[in-house]
Amino acid sequence: MKPIKVGLLGLGVVGGGTWKVLTANAEEIARRAGRRIEVAAAAVRDLDKARHLVGEGVRLTRDGMDVVRDPEIDIVAELIGGDTVARDWVLEAIRQGKHVVTANKALLAKHGNEIFAEAHRRGVMVAFEAAVAGGIPIIKAMREGLTANRIQWLAGIINGTTNFILSEMRVRGLSFGEALADAQRLGYAEADPTFDIEGVDAAHKLTLLASLAFGIPVQFDKAYVEGISALAQEDIAHAERLGYRIKLLGITKRRPDGIELRVHPTLIPTERLLANVEGAMNAVVVCGDMVGATLYYGQGAGALPTASSVVADLVDVTRLQAADPEHRVPLLAFQPDALADTPILPMSEVESSYYLRLRVHDQPGVLADLARILADGGISIDSMFQEPHGEHDADIIFLSHRAREGAVDKAIAQVQSLPFVKSPVTRLRVEHLS
Amino acid sequence: MKPIKVGLLGLGVVGGGTWKVLTANAEEIARRAGRRIEVAAAAVRDLDKARHLVGEGVRLTRDGMDVVRDPEIDIVAELIGGDTVARDWVLEAIRQGKHVVTANKALLAKHGNEIFAEAHRRGVMVAFEAAVAGGIPIIKAMREGLTANRIQWLAGIINGTTNFILSEMRVRGLSFGEALADAQRLGYAEADPTFDIEGVDAAHKLTLLASLAFGIPVQFDKAYVEGISALAQEDIAHAERLGYRIKLLGITKRRPDGIELRVHPTLIPTERLLANVEGAMNAVVVCGDMVGATLYYGQGAGALPTASSVVADLVDVTRLQAADPEHRVPLLAFQPDALADTPILPMSEVESSYYLRLRVHDQPGVLADLARILADGGISIDSMFQEPHGEHDADIIFLSHRAREGAVDKAIAQVQSLPFVKSPVTRLRVEHLS
Repeated sequence: MKPIKVGLLGLGVVGGGTWKVLTANAEEIARRAGRRIEVAAAAVRDLDKARHLVGEGVRLTRDGMDVVRDPEIDIVAELIGGDTVARDWVLEAIRQGKHVVTANKALLAKHGNEIFAEAHRRGVMVAFEAAVAGGIPIIKAMREGLTANRIQWLAGIINGTTNFILSEMRVRGLSFGEALADAQRLGYAEADPTFDIEGVDAAHKLTLLASLAFGIPVQFDKAYVEGISALAQEDIAHAERLGYRIKLLGITKRRPDGIELRVHPTLIPTERLLANVEGAMNAVVVCGDMVGATLYYGQGAGALPTASSVVADLVDVTRLQAADPEHRVPLLAFQPDALADTPILPMSEVESSYYLRLRVHDQPGVLADLARILADGGISIDSMFQEPHGEHDADIIFLSHRAREGAVDKAIAQVQSLPFVKSPVTRLRVEHLS
Repeated sequence: MKPIKVGLLGLGVVGGGTWKVLTANAEEIARRAGRRIEVAAAAVRDLDKARHLVGEGVRLTRDGMDVVRDPEIDIVAELIGGDTVARDWVLEAIRQGKHVVTANKALLAKHGNEIFAEAHRRGVMVAFEAAVAGGIPIIKAMREGLTANRIQWLAGIINGTTNFILSEMRVRGLSFGEALADAQRLGYAEADPTFDIEGVDAAHKLTLLASLAFGIPVQFDKAYVEGISALAQEDIAHAERLGYRIKLLGITKRRPDGIELRVHPTLIPTERLLANVEGAMNAVVVCGDMVGATLYYGQGAGALPTASSVVADLVDVTRLQAADPEHRVPLLAFQPDALADTPILPMSEVESSYYLRLRVHDQPGVLADLARILADGGISIDSMFQEPHGEHDADIIFLSHRAREGAVDKAIAQVQSLPFVKSPVTRLRVEHLS
């Protein structure tokens, strides 16, 4: 089966990330999509820089119209941002009968109705997973995962810059200005941060989510938008005292007489998962009438997470544009002829950290003997503490660094045979999930 | 366009839930799927009880073979559980060329390879979103949302019964036996809880997730399975002291020489979102090489959340089995001719709770005046506190119950004009997300 040919509009942060993902994971992607996905052409600002990045196999041009009108191209990925040139190129791509993948929330929030109508007329797909919440597959969840539900409301942290600033203000006690300066120094905020800190970027994304939730046209101009630049440090502290954290939320809600659509700083109870989403991370809670609340969490920005969504859309279009059963979503995610026979490892080969608890007769040298056995097994200790039990005994608790389970089992057997050990050794596994 | 005809195998908890979702949300589902989805036949144990539930429009039978061989049926939804009769009916449905939707993890974990191979041969879909993590669209995320990534590992709380028991043990200091008895009394655990508490149910689900993550055959027999029945209360307390919580996790991980596949109680750092998933809720963290860690959270069991996934699969099959552009996933989730013109509400009509802060000259009667204005506006106070500022002033912080924003703005304007109020009133919105 011949490869799907993609034309990239833009090779900047997201465009470059998309190139990298398609190149680095070409095999894995073909195993899933059923055919290879290749970049055949790209429209870029700097031809020399682009040539250096992508090598000789890609046709480069300065004019996006060259790409969208190229008969060889199956799918156009619009990754330049903005809503002027991007709009022209996207509309022309659709008129040329090409499927479009875009990461451009500003474009869709403002011109989505026009673009979607044109795509519907021409029978092509417009996919925009990357436009909302970066690498989190929230569009797919809304559009396909929750189709059984009347959506009641959704609330999301959908701008990483402002969430980073709010985390810094809370944890480090900084003022808004100090936290913003930090965010700019660390690359989380742009030199002109207005779109982020005033809530405009979040409102673009919320507008799209509201359309998906309620089946209404895109209506960015009706959204209420309030940012975080006026937020005082003392309100964050007061909120904490009351059991709340302040997050910039995009909220949309079904009401009997209409739909709420609003972005503003919001106090939420500290025990909610959403209140514990820190730093530049994103998360969206969607509440459906049948499923209840579901939450989706991950990196909301950055070259590779955003490209992860762009490429997922490319795979989707590749799978969906062919009608025969071979090209449906494969039952086990990968094409049946691409399954691997990678072995499942026995538990002795598994690596984990370990929690060990044992009761000992408390006498000199106990710890030294235990530590020696662990060290001989190549198991290093992360932390330990000891609790007296009765007059002569003590419970000892170890946390180990990562080790192979076979080595840990061997060490436990040796420990178990020591004369001063008075209980079976309790062993639990520890994972740091990072 | 004529309705899609579904045949239900089973009308118990999940089957009854599926009936309810398809009936209650028939309009919303048709707006999304492009055509109506109707139950035409059902195989049930008790014909009278079933007739009472579904009325006259559905053909009822005791024999699933009647349903799977019914030429009128487009999609068979297998919701009886178990792996004997269910296997026969599912295989026959596939041989009859029918698409299959199932919630049956035990069936797929044991006979998935056979079932998927047969489905591939016959060119039909087998969809199983409801088989893992109830209402959370995790299968879709794995199979379609993260296709750009080499999955590195995933870790999930995928059994609600055990998570409920572990939460009770930690929060209320109960022993395993006490917490299990509670879970049984509250309906979170079955009379014979073995499958849940010994980790078998979680291992069924993990086995399916591992196949989706790594593109390997279903290999339940290779999974390491350890439950929570031997877990001591004191280890939960020790873990807490060390900064960890104990969760029953299903973990699968790519290693250079193979794949780890294991279910066991696991200590995880308290600050991870996954450590804060309490009660019967489910959550899965998936780490891809490009997107990093993403998390999916929601109700993992129950009639309606599980049915939410069954029906999402029915919509998927409905959308995918037709090849023309009209039946692709609609760009804005709903079919273009089904968009609604529901109005976006002005902010004055929005309902929220409110946080108010103001500085006052501290004199008798201040609080009474403020409380009177709020009460006259129909705004009731949830809590308040006051902080002295200098010798004569104080900051007053209110939290209100839910109120209409227009009323709050009016009250604030009145407060602002009081002679003892010395600052602009800071107003933030509060959402409880429940």
